[in-house]
Amino acid sequence: MRASTYPLVDADEAAALVLERTPVLPAEEVALSEAAGRVLAQDMQAPSALPAFPSSAVDGFAARSADAGKGLRIVGESAAGRPFMGKLEPGTAARILTGGAVPDGADTVVMVEDVSLNGEVVTVPSTLQPGANFHRPGADVRAGELVLTAGTQLGAAELGLAAALGFPRLRLYMRPRVALMSTGDELVEVGMEPGPGQIVDSNRWALLAALREAGAEVTSLGIAPDERKALSAVVAAALDAADVLVTSGGVSVGTHDLVKPLLESLGTVHIGRVKLKPGKPFTFATIPAQRTGGHSPSHLRGEGRGGEVQERLAFGLPGFPVSSLVTFEVFVRPALRKLQGFSKLQRPTLPVRLGYDARATADRTEYQRVTLTRHGSEMVAQTTGSQSSSRLLSLVGAHALVRIAPGDHGVKAGTVVEAMILALP
Amino acid sequence: MRASTYPLVDADEAAALVLERTPVLPAEEVALSEAAGRVLAQDMQAPSALPAFPSSAVDGFAARSADAGKGLRIVGESAAGRPFMGKLEPGTAARILTGGAVPDGADTVVMVEDVSLNGEVVTVPSTLQPGANFHRPGADVRAGELVLTAGTQLGAAELGLAAALGFPRLRLYMRPRVALMSTGDELVEVGMEPGPGQIVDSNRWALLAALREAGAEVTSLGIAPDERKALSAVVAAALDAADVLVTSGGVSVGTHDLVKPLLESLGTVHIGRVKLKPGKPFTFATIPAQRTGGHSPSHLRGEGRGGEVQERLAFGLPGFPVSSLVTFEVFVRPALRKLQGFSKLQRPTLPVRLGYDARATADRTEYQRVTLTRHGSEMVAQTTGSQSSSRLLSLVGAHALVRIAPGDHGVKAGTVVEAMILALP
Repeated sequence: MRASTYPLVDADEAAALVLERTPVLPAEEVALSEAAGRVLAQDMQAPSALPAFPSSAVDGFAARSADAGKGLRIVGESAAGRPFMGKLEPGTAARILTGGAVPDGADTVVMVEDVSLNGEVVTVPSTLQPGANFHRPGADVRAGELVLTAGTQLGAAELGLAAALGFPRLRLYMRPRVALMSTGDELVEVGMEPGPGQIVDSNRWALLAALREAGAEVTSLGIAPDERKALSAVVAAALDAADVLVTSGGVSVGTHDLVKPLLESLGTVHIGRVKLKPGKPFTFATIPAQRTGGHSPSHLRGEGRGGEVQERLAFGLPGFPVSSLVTFEVFVRPALRKLQGFSKLQRPTLPVRLGYDARATADRTEYQRVTLTRHGSEMVAQTTGSQSSSRLLSLVGAHALVRIAPGDHGVKAGTVVEAMILALP
Repeated sequence: MRASTYPLVDADEAAALVLERTPVLPAEEVALSEAAGRVLAQDMQAPSALPAFPSSAVDGFAARSADAGKGLRIVGESAAGRPFMGKLEPGTAARILTGGAVPDGADTVVMVEDVSLNGEVVTVPSTLQPGANFHRPGADVRAGELVLTAGTQLGAAELGLAAALGFPRLRLYMRPRVALMSTGDELVEVGMEPGPGQIVDSNRWALLAALREAGAEVTSLGIAPDERKALSAVVAAALDAADVLVTSGGVSVGTHDLVKPLLESLGTVHIGRVKLKPGKPFTFATIPAQRTGGHSPSHLRGEGRGGEVQERLAFGLPGFPVSSLVTFEVFVRPALRKLQGFSKLQRPTLPVRLGYDARATADRTEYQRVTLTRHGSEMVAQTTGSQSSSRLLSLVGAHALVRIAPGDHGVKAGTVVEAMILALP
């Protein structure tokens, strides 16, 4: 039992330091079917216009506006995918269906409701507007237009646009590969009966979900061996095929801590303690990529453009369940988003009115878990109850995290603060 | 070319009708590793307390508060997972590490910073608070406590809690299996060069992403054959292994519409047109589950408790890309959420101040796409530009949908309206 030798780092400085050491991963080609939720690695310009041809917005008749008021001979039909290929001469019209190409010669489309039909002759209204009732080429997207920028996350509309512009594959940032494990002599696997003094490993399941939600590809390494050499071998092998190591547990002073010495032996521990509540034992290290992996994809991926070997990131999260998830939110999630090229790294925030007196901790930034309720046009934040770092129920159903700066004063009920939104009510 | 025989249904009535016909799917057992994002099908009660034993919150010494001020003989150590198994007699103390079980006999934990040590004797302060510095059994969760209710979506905290309580598998609602296809003679696959009058099928890629985000398991059937018998066979086969059919295109009057007649031949078309902009041709049908499928899982799944055969849902979305995604949001997404047991079916809403004059459509509810920008404590909504139903750029980067009621007046800039939030800025 000894005091930690690591200096206590300010929470905001620690978050900035983590992002400074976090690179952006290389790009790869991805098929549209696998691209949802991922991030574009280069700007997208339209190779051609949308629509590419004048396309009817209604069912009716393609005509020449100069023929207003006349009876026109129907010379054909233009349906979606089955265009009328000829040119429309004066005194003629073509049936046209929604999505059908407006034939050469025509400059307007008349809705079927507005005409009178007599056999193969259609009489059109006495005033016709050129350009009416059809989409002009380039009306939606001009050829060469910048439609999406690098760093954009691809949702339904973006993927539809990419397909419409003829891109079957896209250049996207790689997703971070994360090796995840729990440490602690007290842990047993879920489904096993805990013995005296033992508890079920829960952090790994919580972090697995949080990591996947944040876009990571996760390899679960289970509960770490509690013997230093075995652990070191497991971690070194995992890091050969991963960009990031995430552990939970075993970083408090006095716990049978294997993690900090392990990270020290593999690389550089930049942060060993943080002025954060919950989450004081948070640990962050970088580990040089191994050159021993031969031609594994991870090896290639670990090399920058100039061939220099890049670093792996290692996050040692505290063992208490709430501490591990709060430090995930504050430090790990923004890093995972930077790795995969997101232009926006942080959770969105909204102003909320505190519905309780939030006490501050003298020397640590505190992230309190709250639920949100609409009162008129405002959001009111209520505490989720006891904020004990072991009490997962303080996070269950939480809509937001409220940051309380260190000090003696806290924040009084009724004050409007900016809350980090986890989920809207 | 003829007017549609389907009545124009009010948009809100149509949405209510869809949800009325939408069942909740049965439950299934799911491993924790596959449970993230899914919905709990039964309430979760704690089978035992958390923590299960008194667990130290700090590194220090377990002692008896009656021994305050004394020099105590150190008789052992209690570390996480390695408890001190004896009983603490008067005049003795045990070293204890964070997470270690507080031994029988001890009623307090003294932090290591607050003691003086002399060989195997520890002198504790003259006042000791019973119950200090350790988590009492049941402090986080009481045995028997209701911790999660059916209908809750499982995120990181909920899964951590489930693991901590010893549940390796959970009873969750099944995810909806959706068969997805595009229809339209004008469509070619992305990567192919469109011929005259042809366009690339983009809706299927947009809907694939939207469906997956909404929790569906999607089977993509590609572009539908444009011959009625072939199409009918494809759809019937697909519905044998799906809960929901989603098509796009081919539901407008006058398009070479195969979808409405197909749905009429297979089941009942409840909605064939909606007073909605964009999205007027939206179609909704129910189709009786086939009894011909033998013992396929879908067949079993299609039968209710009493053995009666349940219905499949079929959504015929319009072909214009924005119309297909807006009708997805308004009608399909809430139905998919009801199928998988969500207690909350709709997108969250927030009050936003209109930054533009929103014109109304006389006889149709309009969903306009907007971006949101923070101005002080307010959100200001700006239009995404031309709201043409073919212009996907009106949805790219949109943060919200603003509902404009039918009528002549519209909504003036400066008015605060409730917006359906797609993504916070």
